[in-house]
Amino acid sequence: MTDRIREFLRTHRNDGPCLVVDLEEVRENFRAFESALPDSRIFYAVKANPAPEILSALAAMGSCFDCASIPEIEAALAAGATPERISFGNTIKKERDVAAAFDLGVRLFAVDCLPEVEKISRAAPGARVFCRILCDGAGADWPLSRKFGCTPEHAPDVLEAAHRAGLVAAGISFHVGSQQRNTEAWDAAIASASAIFQIMAMRGIRLTLVNLGGGFPARYRGDEPAANLYGVAIRESILRHFGNRVPETIIEPGRGMVGSAGILKTEVVLISKKDPSEDTRWVFLDIGKFGGLAETMDEAIRYPIRSERDGAEAGPCVIAGPTCDSADVLYEKTPYLLPLSLEIGDMLLFEGTGAYTTTYSSIGFNGFAPLQAIVI
Amino acid sequence: MTDRIREFLRTHRNDGPCLVVDLEEVRENFRAFESALPDSRIFYAVKANPAPEILSALAAMGSCFDCASIPEIEAALAAGATPERISFGNTIKKERDVAAAFDLGVRLFAVDCLPEVEKISRAAPGARVFCRILCDGAGADWPLSRKFGCTPEHAPDVLEAAHRAGLVAAGISFHVGSQQRNTEAWDAAIASASAIFQIMAMRGIRLTLVNLGGGFPARYRGDEPAANLYGVAIRESILRHFGNRVPETIIEPGRGMVGSAGILKTEVVLISKKDPSEDTRWVFLDIGKFGGLAETMDEAIRYPIRSERDGAEAGPCVIAGPTCDSADVLYEKTPYLLPLSLEIGDMLLFEGTGAYTTTYSSIGFNGFAPLQAIVI
Repeated sequence: MTDRIREFLRTHRNDGPCLVVDLEEVRENFRAFESALPDSRIFYAVKANPAPEILSALAAMGSCFDCASIPEIEAALAAGATPERISFGNTIKKERDVAAAFDLGVRLFAVDCLPEVEKISRAAPGARVFCRILCDGAGADWPLSRKFGCTPEHAPDVLEAAHRAGLVAAGISFHVGSQQRNTEAWDAAIASASAIFQIMAMRGIRLTLVNLGGGFPARYRGDEPAANLYGVAIRESILRHFGNRVPETIIEPGRGMVGSAGILKTEVVLISKKDPSEDTRWVFLDIGKFGGLAETMDEAIRYPIRSERDGAEAGPCVIAGPTCDSADVLYEKTPYLLPLSLEIGDMLLFEGTGAYTTTYSSIGFNGFAPLQAIVI
Repeated sequence: MTDRIREFLRTHRNDGPCLVVDLEEVRENFRAFESALPDSRIFYAVKANPAPEILSALAAMGSCFDCASIPEIEAALAAGATPERISFGNTIKKERDVAAAFDLGVRLFAVDCLPEVEKISRAAPGARVFCRILCDGAGADWPLSRKFGCTPEHAPDVLEAAHRAGLVAAGISFHVGSQQRNTEAWDAAIASASAIFQIMAMRGIRLTLVNLGGGFPARYRGDEPAANLYGVAIRESILRHFGNRVPETIIEPGRGMVGSAGILKTEVVLISKKDPSEDTRWVFLDIGKFGGLAETMDEAIRYPIRSERDGAEAGPCVIAGPTCDSADVLYEKTPYLLPLSLEIGDMLLFEGTGAYTTTYSSIGFNGFAPLQAIVI
């Protein structure tokens, strides 16, 4: 909770939930990544929060951009990024979107299989590609599936195919899982990358790039390691596995760049009990899973929640959203403690909501408007 | 898959995923509910699909509307419904929204606790209220939580408080769980309702209304019981529990009204394997969990998927969406069989997608536009 947001919320009252993002905090996070990994280029993961003000601020500081789609590429360009500062990092791309990105000047693409290499060789001749490998994501709060990446054993064939098709086989990427709390999580993947570099060298193809992905946590509970600790662990790991042939590296922070910069304001719509004999109160808010808090799915991300009554005696609450959908319950398995004096009409603040909120918001489920965002 | 949709898809090609809804099918479903439960008033659950064309068609046939918010009430009014045909069926309402609904002429409200009764007595004096009771939802495909309703034991106190506050304590509502496959699921709740009617009569308050809720399934796999079977089971249950004092009943079909009327067209963006040694293909589509297929959460709803190559030899596939989110996997635990000859660029059709798709769609996650809908 920054002073600027506190001041803003005191003077601006509006109806309905809203997210307030403090650009100063985003800039501070950018500088923290720069100083933690001074030799890595920073590609901000636009999907975390594509607000134009955020993209412009980061572009002005020299950030590069990891984009998932043509609209995200266009947004990065509109914010002032030049095409060589853009990566089309989605491994799942329509060939016509690859062509559109190429037309816009983008020359760096993610792949994780032969068919994607074929598309890129046709639609973006000569471009650089990096191959994403599977990672197990242990230690991350947001679940990582097998959706992205091929096995490390298959990666050399993918990269060799790219090379033979006239593309530049640039290197390897991976993702250790979002909100990754273990600073050592990168080590196994960096070791895999180094092994693939050696296999490719034996095939006469020199890789140069390791894309370390994202995963850097936002500060939710306060016990997450800071960026510099990740930087130390990653730099040591690269030295250990690559020796003095240190590759070009890039990082793709999203949550770690903007998560801590946002505060979500919501109103208590109803406090009730299912039966007077039960202790647990149900606290219903004017925002829920379908209004932007999708990451409460399976209670994966537990945002700190503040109320003006903090400090008073507290009791357990189930917290739920305003829609007529029984799945729209935010926290139930591990209830939150909220003040017993909490009342209908009170304002609650969800901290660390700068990432992965506004764009997850449904366009109008149950007739509720999408989450409004204000960047200050 | 209706002939009208088949013809439409043959002649209209557009880029990106889209939902096509056949109004004739909606009208047929409405008539099926009318004939299955001729003595019940039908309140269409607007949240299932609030497309103006659907609301207008249903309003013209005499449907009433179950609304979750002021925008849904306004949409029903704009479609030609008069206020006495509208229920504000959300148990979670801001007091200023209750007042706004009252100003628009709405006189029927859901409650499930004392604080909500207090709001309504202040903001909608003299209105009719029904009290929602908890139901266990066994037999339903879409999970039902404890989010809505109070215990049946607490309901009489809620209704008595409404009566004392000058409201009309109209009756009881419940919901047996969406996509409910068991025609007997209503019986236990109807028995509860009858018991509450008797308790209230002893307190000198005569209830008149049983809101049977929704839950009527859409046809996904073809083995779901038809509306008339639900009608028979429900009418028998009411006679059994209420004898010849049959109450006024209403039903709130959403999925059952529009689910079967929609076909979602999507394009195969990528087919790949994580490793050449694996049998399972990963099929990536241009729509996923965040583009409208939210009900694939936990693989709850399994839509029938059609391809132009159906009939050819098939093999197991994991099906995933286009976003850079590892949670955006539609079906993995129970893989689908799709033709081995399936190719990138092929069109797939998801049947039974008329309900709970468009409005779940995110406003722009990963830069992808919300799901487009065409009503024919």
